[in-house]
Amino acid sequence: MKALGTHIVCELSGCDPAKLSDVDAVADMMVQAAHEANATVIERAFHRFQPQGVSGVVVIQESHLSIHTWPESGYAAMDFYTCGDHTDPWAACEYAAKALVATVMTTTEVKRGIEAGADRYTHVVTTDHDVRELARIA
Amino acid sequence: MKALGTHIVCELSGCDPAKLSDVDAVADMMVQAAHEANATVIERAFHRFQPQGVSGVVVIQESHLSIHTWPESGYAAMDFYTCGDHTDPWAACEYAAKALVATVMTTTEVKRGIEAGADRYTHVVTTDHDVRELARIA
Repeated sequence: MKALGTHIVCELSGCDPAKLSDVDAVADMMVQAAHEANATVIERAFHRFQPQGVSGVVVIQESHLSIHTWPESGYAAMDFYTCGDHTDPWAACEYAAKALVATVMTTTEVKRGIEAGADRYTHVVTTDHDVRELARIA
Repeated sequence: MKALGTHIVCELSGCDPAKLSDVDAVADMMVQAAHEANATVIERAFHRFQPQGVSGVVVIQESHLSIHTWPESGYAAMDFYTCGDHTDPWAACEYAAKALVATVMTTTEVKRGIEAGADRYTHVVTTDHDVRELARIA
């Protein structure tokens, strides 16, 4: 199955609220996550909400990484979507989970841009709703 | 099942290559898609690749919308992720498919930020790999 890209939908729970609140630190973490994935950053857009929470996206040469945080709940909703054989979105995902000190990581992986004939592209959910207890395996 | 957000992963095939190549038009279309979803745009970041292709994200008050285009294949990989009961990511998705003159739309819907007890958040794939022939139902 040849796919143009891999997209990980990820919920991180039990994160450090302080790390979810600092927009500059979150942006830096996301850029580093892109580097961990061996991706090239081309644009970034981050915003801090009042009273709390951060939303932001790093557009990479190979698609994008996104984050939306709820510090009051220790929760971050993230996406890691990279194209090309040279990138590894899982490296970005693992890095973010560690950086935010998450205790539970729930992921679903979607292979995207799969040729389905006649100029048609489709996607396939390859791992659905995988839950990892990070505190226990640390 | 109470979820903080709904995330649609979407592949659009058979799109008009010219509409996938013009970065300003794509950015405007994405902002309009956000409005169609009843979302509030707070940031945008778009990039045109050489020789062709556009990547970009609209960060909204309620999460984000993203697009990555392959004009040479008439293909766009998109995400429509909105939070809150007042938004409808499907309205953005339908709008984008029409605007790009897609003939086939493949979607998977993920309900995100579902409380799973003890400060844990999870997600659930609610519709997997739904394929719609847009030209035939137009």
